[in-house]
Amino acid sequence: MNQIKTIAFDADDTLWVNEPIFTKTRLEYENILSSYFEIDDSLELKLYEVELRNLKLFGYGIKGFMLSMIESAIELSQKKVSGEDIRKIIDLGKEMLSHPVEILPGIEETVERLKDDYQLIIITKGDLWDQETKIARSGLAEHFEHIEIVSEKNTTTYKGILDRYRVAPSNFLMIGNSLKSDILPVCEIGGNAVHIPFHDTWLHEKMDKHTIGEYSFHELKSINELGDYLKTI
Amino acid sequence: MNQIKTIAFDADDTLWVNEPIFTKTRLEYENILSSYFEIDDSLELKLYEVELRNLKLFGYGIKGFMLSMIESAIELSQKKVSGEDIRKIIDLGKEMLSHPVEILPGIEETVERLKDDYQLIIITKGDLWDQETKIARSGLAEHFEHIEIVSEKNTTTYKGILDRYRVAPSNFLMIGNSLKSDILPVCEIGGNAVHIPFHDTWLHEKMDKHTIGEYSFHELKSINELGDYLKTI
Repeated sequence: MNQIKTIAFDADDTLWVNEPIFTKTRLEYENILSSYFEIDDSLELKLYEVELRNLKLFGYGIKGFMLSMIESAIELSQKKVSGEDIRKIIDLGKEMLSHPVEILPGIEETVERLKDDYQLIIITKGDLWDQETKIARSGLAEHFEHIEIVSEKNTTTYKGILDRYRVAPSNFLMIGNSLKSDILPVCEIGGNAVHIPFHDTWLHEKMDKHTIGEYSFHELKSINELGDYLKTI
Repeated sequence: MNQIKTIAFDADDTLWVNEPIFTKTRLEYENILSSYFEIDDSLELKLYEVELRNLKLFGYGIKGFMLSMIESAIELSQKKVSGEDIRKIIDLGKEMLSHPVEILPGIEETVERLKDDYQLIIITKGDLWDQETKIARSGLAEHFEHIEIVSEKNTTTYKGILDRYRVAPSNFLMIGNSLKSDILPVCEIGGNAVHIPFHDTWLHEKMDKHTIGEYSFHELKSINELGDYLKTI
């Protein structure tokens, strides 16, 4: 038997599909703006610049993304964007907010199987309201003992959660798709982490592999490998 | 000695000024829209209707308010509102988000005095990111043992918090300015509540006094009366 007692899951792109919804929206957004100027690859970068500039004020989540899309549309169209088109951008965001929650393959079975042997937690970053409604709509909530929605995933956040539930880092395993948010801060406080990459990752969560340096963690291709992994450690 | 062991404070308009910032913004918003149509008292109601319609998607907080202001501006101007003016509305919202935190009179002294005898908590509703930055900027955080930012303040929320910290309702006192969010749900689960009205209250938090019926709670004119109140119970 391994020493893991508590397993925490990231939510977006670990439990359910998230980034592809943003990607689809960005394409529809480009489509709206294509009547004002010629669209090229730089649009995504320009939008990202505005998102980054607004991050300190807005934090993470769809509402902030909506506001950044509107702000970029005004800037890039040199204030020519019409009320009608801004309305369409708001509608794109509302579609994202009410998008069905698509659970990733293998998650339900894995969570079902683990919940009797481990304390299961969700630790997710983002907008409180948005994450709560997604968790409710996912139908997964009942399998998790605690749900933590946090504004940022860093060592302070993880330490706070482990303290709150009196879990030693050596007994804690975090599972997620983001090296920056799910893996490195957990390694840094002496916890265990399993990286399950997702094909689509937001620029902001991407990381230069070289900075991973001294920490070791495991990478699995899919959640279906988790059961076997837990037997080996 | 009374039986209260844990005192929880609402934040917006209990610890610090909040609604007047919205009121000021609404006036500046009217000013922007006044070049499109004649402004009368119905504008506030119309904006509130849009806010209410969006509440299920956006939840509480300034970012949702910004999006509702933009949506209303497009609707009410019959899509004529310019990119320039939408930019101004976004700037109004950004000013709100970075507005200095103005602690209400008597709060610092009261919290200082109570913190050795009681477990102090903040329970605040709204946007996670926004509330966290306000708490950080307020300089009050160190006096509170726990900070709970919630998406809705109802009996389920309060029960969850009391369970989490193993506090019996009879040992719990909630202090806040909203009958609907701070007082009634706490009375309903058998807790104690002190209402400190604030001169400015958002329509959504207003309540018909008649619905208060069976519950009893105390009303204080200001936080400065709290110390004496605690001696009497």
